[in-house]
Amino acid sequence: MRKGYRFERELLHKLWEIGFAAVRTPASGVMSYPCPDIIAGNGKTYLAIEVKMRSSLPLYLSKDEVNSLKEFAEKFGAKPLIALKVKGMRWRFFTLDMLVECRSNYKIDESIFYKGFDFDELRGLKQLRFEH
Amino acid sequence: MRKGYRFERELLHKLWEIGFAAVRTPASGVMSYPCPDIIAGNGKTYLAIEVKMRSSLPLYLSKDEVNSLKEFAEKFGAKPLIALKVKGMRWRFFTLDMLVECRSNYKIDESIFYKGFDFDELRGLKQLRFEH
Repeated sequence: MRKGYRFERELLHKLWEIGFAAVRTPASGVMSYPCPDIIAGNGKTYLAIEVKMRSSLPLYLSKDEVNSLKEFAEKFGAKPLIALKVKGMRWRFFTLDMLVECRSNYKIDESIFYKGFDFDELRGLKQLRFEH
Repeated sequence: MRKGYRFERELLHKLWEIGFAAVRTPASGVMSYPCPDIIAGNGKTYLAIEVKMRSSLPLYLSKDEVNSLKEFAEKFGAKPLIALKVKGMRWRFFTLDMLVECRSNYKIDESIFYKGFDFDELRGLKQLRFEH
């Protein structure tokens, strides 16, 4: 069972609330294809989301995980996003170019955490900051 | 457990083969949101697919099921499709306007089965027949 199932459900609810049709993918993939935790679309913007939760920062992500998300998103035609729930904080969303590279990993630490999108920004994401 | 899991896997493989990134959705939804069996995208075309298998025709679909697929697809921004595997036959794909209305249901019978798309057509679907 994938960790943080409750958080995925919470995120799914919120995505529907802000106008996205969103689905979770199965907890255990039977195939070797890349697959994000959540896929969402609103007719204009498509999102491939990897969902993470931590009791505190930083969050480390392996390069394999990030590359797999990127690969899926490019092929599908979606924006790859990391959704991060840190205990006691609101959800934040990160594009892959926001991640901090460190040795063989990527991380999200205090230096970039507050630059993450919040839900209000995600609602208008395409307009606000994707088009650079 | 959702019936026809093997066929969903087979379909998923084939979608990847023809250039789509495709995911299955979980067998048991915990939420009340509409959710197709498979979602796929190739950067240009997005598909919301309900997967069906029968030993013989016809296939009946409830209006609720069809409406739920339609609702999800409109919100997500995908083409709604019924994928049908009849024993001994190749996969066929149907848009919702191809379905035959009958009493409180829709059906796919011999009169429309051979009008369904095959994989070669799905590969070029957007160009071939979606733009009417």
